[in-house]
Amino acid sequence: MDLEPIKYLNDKLYLLDQRKLPFDITYLEIKNHYDLIDAIKNLSIRGAPLLGLAGLYGLFFASNESKNIDEFLQFSTLIRNSRPTAVNLSLMIDKALDKLILNKYFENDLFKVSQFLLKEINLLENKLKEESELIAKKGLKLIEDNDSILTHCNTGSLAVGWLGTALGIIKYAFNTGKKIEVYYTETRPLLQGARITSIELLKANVPSTLIVDSAVGYFMKIGKITKVIVGADRIAKNGDTANKIGTYNIAVLAKYHRIPFYVAAPKSTFDNSLEDGSKIPIEFRNPDEIKKLNEIKLAPEESKAQNPAFDVTPRELISAFITEAEIIYL
Amino acid sequence: MDLEPIKYLNDKLYLLDQRKLPFDITYLEIKNHYDLIDAIKNLSIRGAPLLGLAGLYGLFFASNESKNIDEFLQFSTLIRNSRPTAVNLSLMIDKALDKLILNKYFENDLFKVSQFLLKEINLLENKLKEESELIAKKGLKLIEDNDSILTHCNTGSLAVGWLGTALGIIKYAFNTGKKIEVYYTETRPLLQGARITSIELLKANVPSTLIVDSAVGYFMKIGKITKVIVGADRIAKNGDTANKIGTYNIAVLAKYHRIPFYVAAPKSTFDNSLEDGSKIPIEFRNPDEIKKLNEIKLAPEESKAQNPAFDVTPRELISAFITEAEIIYL
Repeated sequence: MDLEPIKYLNDKLYLLDQRKLPFDITYLEIKNHYDLIDAIKNLSIRGAPLLGLAGLYGLFFASNESKNIDEFLQFSTLIRNSRPTAVNLSLMIDKALDKLILNKYFENDLFKVSQFLLKEINLLENKLKEESELIAKKGLKLIEDNDSILTHCNTGSLAVGWLGTALGIIKYAFNTGKKIEVYYTETRPLLQGARITSIELLKANVPSTLIVDSAVGYFMKIGKITKVIVGADRIAKNGDTANKIGTYNIAVLAKYHRIPFYVAAPKSTFDNSLEDGSKIPIEFRNPDEIKKLNEIKLAPEESKAQNPAFDVTPRELISAFITEAEIIYL
Repeated sequence: MDLEPIKYLNDKLYLLDQRKLPFDITYLEIKNHYDLIDAIKNLSIRGAPLLGLAGLYGLFFASNESKNIDEFLQFSTLIRNSRPTAVNLSLMIDKALDKLILNKYFENDLFKVSQFLLKEINLLENKLKEESELIAKKGLKLIEDNDSILTHCNTGSLAVGWLGTALGIIKYAFNTGKKIEVYYTETRPLLQGARITSIELLKANVPSTLIVDSAVGYFMKIGKITKVIVGADRIAKNGDTANKIGTYNIAVLAKYHRIPFYVAAPKSTFDNSLEDGSKIPIEFRNPDEIKKLNEIKLAPEESKAQNPAFDVTPRELISAFITEAEIIYL
């Protein structure tokens, strides 16, 4: 991985500012949990697995900045709620807090809490690395020579750390010699495909073509797409999957064209507390993300816009889930 | 109509530069047929019906600028080929040339040719106005109170002149008192929805919401869309319909959600010389339209992109065609 999305050095956290990619490589210096919440909300850091890791760093900062356990818990709640859709953020925070409760918050010693959180961060980093390699290896079984794979948004090193999920499978399959090519969507409104997936594919030398989101049907119809692989932000117990807005469009189009549609995600993305996708909270972001690009206006200020950042793909449109443990056919 | 897309004044043609809308209202001064070809190619003028009218103006300029009929015919071919997908451009030019041949090019008198073309322009303007009103009236029969109508790209005054086709129906229905609201796509890459449909809907006071192309499935799934109406650039004999890229995505999604999908277009959009949609030429435009916005880079220069400007929706996905003469159920 050439660009690291997250680095901890000399008591400071450095986050690659993903809003400015690919033309500007800037690291944000995160000095406290407030900075971290801002970075999560404004999408400097993004990608479901990385959000889990960022959440733990947030707790770590909070533990250093709190007067007592009560204040630490208040800060934790703010971090937990900074983005609602990806399960990883709340899940990793809840898991860490559960362990802290079991340890009775180390008798209210926030230094012990902070040391514990550093260990949890280390464990999670190792886990994410291992998971992403295992997902790539499991996914390889589904890739054939001459596949032309469509992917959406960014699910590579910069979303997940290490290899990635959907994009990790693609890069790994290409590196092991599979003759494949990739179509990837620009992914409006924030263009994670055009800005981020583009550079990861260029660096990996994978033959690839950028298309607008609305051209997916065209390229499927003329036979250019043989498989779809996407990531996931949260998967309900029954398999309904929340992911970047536009995933559901692609899933319906894949079904219509009888093209296999795979979701690649670590098992931690499954949220068994939710029976089905109707319970997954969908984040609506600022309409200005649609109406402006940098400072250029794209639509009149008076025009109303709605900007859901995610949609839910029902399980019946998903051919299989590629996880670190197994390929799951529901 | 507040903004006229095309005006002829004092021997000069003025075209509203639609690339700069809605923030910059500039008219291009077209002095010869070369200027006109440029304006068509770079999309200063757009919209299937208007392209037919622009084509006739091109012939008119060419007739004034040619040494003889042979040169006039050479110029005509250049104009005819300036955009391939919309049938109106080639159709209007061919019809005019057919009549000129019948009249033996008025014995090689280019002044007579030029006077004839001015009359044809006048006739076509009247026809477009009348057609757009008739389409709006026919379409009204399909609109009910509480409809929430999705449309794509721009099919209003600025595409068609006068009322428009799909957007004409919407504005007319609203003005006659139907309680409706509209969702409209931004329409990447050139954002005709965000830039142009937006202002037409604002001016008409129709309650409306701008969404990204990839959010169509989301809003259909949550029940926000009751009908889809789009325009057409060319319709094959069997009903297969070429229209702005993304139309096919929407049609497949409408089918999946059992939402009626209507195409509004004058009968001249039917090209009976083509048996089916596979024969409709699809224009691929410069990939920089995807990779750049004004001077802002959206993707790395080295990334390959493909930019089909249109797609073809098969007739089985189309509930009905709304024409000036009748509603056609295939």
